[in-house]
Amino acid sequence: MRPKVVVNVAMSADGKIALADKTEVKISGEEDFARVHELRNEVDAILVGIGTVIADDPKLTVKDRFVKDPKHPLKVVLDSKGKTPKNSRLFDEGKYLIATTLDRSDPNWIKCGNGKSVDLNILMKELQERGVKQLLVEGGGEVIYSFFEEGLVDEFYVYVGSMMIGGKNAPTPADGEGTKSIDEIRGLQLISYTPMDDGILLKYRVKKID
Amino acid sequence: MRPKVVVNVAMSADGKIALADKTEVKISGEEDFARVHELRNEVDAILVGIGTVIADDPKLTVKDRFVKDPKHPLKVVLDSKGKTPKNSRLFDEGKYLIATTLDRSDPNWIKCGNGKSVDLNILMKELQERGVKQLLVEGGGEVIYSFFEEGLVDEFYVYVGSMMIGGKNAPTPADGEGTKSIDEIRGLQLISYTPMDDGILLKYRVKKID
Repeated sequence: MRPKVVVNVAMSADGKIALADKTEVKISGEEDFARVHELRNEVDAILVGIGTVIADDPKLTVKDRFVKDPKHPLKVVLDSKGKTPKNSRLFDEGKYLIATTLDRSDPNWIKCGNGKSVDLNILMKELQERGVKQLLVEGGGEVIYSFFEEGLVDEFYVYVGSMMIGGKNAPTPADGEGTKSIDEIRGLQLISYTPMDDGILLKYRVKKID
Repeated sequence: MRPKVVVNVAMSADGKIALADKTEVKISGEEDFARVHELRNEVDAILVGIGTVIADDPKLTVKDRFVKDPKHPLKVVLDSKGKTPKNSRLFDEGKYLIATTLDRSDPNWIKCGNGKSVDLNILMKELQERGVKQLLVEGGGEVIYSFFEEGLVDEFYVYVGSMMIGGKNAPTPADGEGTKSIDEIRGLQLISYTPMDDGILLKYRVKKID
């Protein structure tokens, strides 16, 4: 069985995850940060796209300020063209995998298909073989949309921050080409809503396609 | 005093108000429709942009299926270049105003400034002179963002529908250029959250700028 995929993202009340020029915005607060670090500690792997690595240079670790004796899940970067900077902070500690379409002899790089972008179904198999039962996808919007497009998302968690960002070019939780017809819109089921910091966390289960 | 401005919009869980090609999506259900018609009946005027008129051809009426003896508030269209089609359904019944930058002798057309787009502060004065105390702004995203940009929004109501739409070009509740720096992000205060149909309604007060 493929890993269970949980998407976690924070957006403004108008559905933006950053400014139009991709400047990172602190959308949630300490209570939500603690939740995200606990969530990271519960999964086997955390995945982000190369866009997020370049824009935010995340460590993708579990901070012991939030979790005692953290497990440090595997870090996975979707990076079809091998653009992850060598000095990225995600290399500082813990294990990582770069999912790419290039041929590399490095065992930390895995080739997922011969297409222009990483074949997510191949990646799921590779992760499964490495014992990954739960995968947390943290973004950005292009990556999240591609997981939805492939029908690979089981749960979607969105923290809605109490702010207005605006911008037709500002990144959103799900970018890409988007759903092309009404019939193809993916249904969600709201399973919980929890006020947190000055916003609210919405958790959804993704409905299966009939 | 200028009219109190309430923005009401429905978006998907990933912050989209329509498909990328602007196809209208039924994001909420009967319970939310009833709420919107009650809200329309409570205000003195309802405003939409020309984009919404062309894309959705809304009637902008209060249905007596939802409200007994509806008041039918004034309909206002932001239409700087005078593109409202003559056969638009909003002309079918009730009073209307077209806010424009053109010179027209029609008393239903009001010229708001000499700029490229309607000067919203002039429009607010014109509405105030016509006895409008509460204005409901229903969209689309360009119009909503322009009201936020001018600091004219008092409350922001967003119904979050349980669905995923996606698309970096899909319209959102606040489009336009967007906030340009972290310091300029407009803060909101979450005043209520109410499950409704299969989604949730979030109501915010807009924080005043110090």
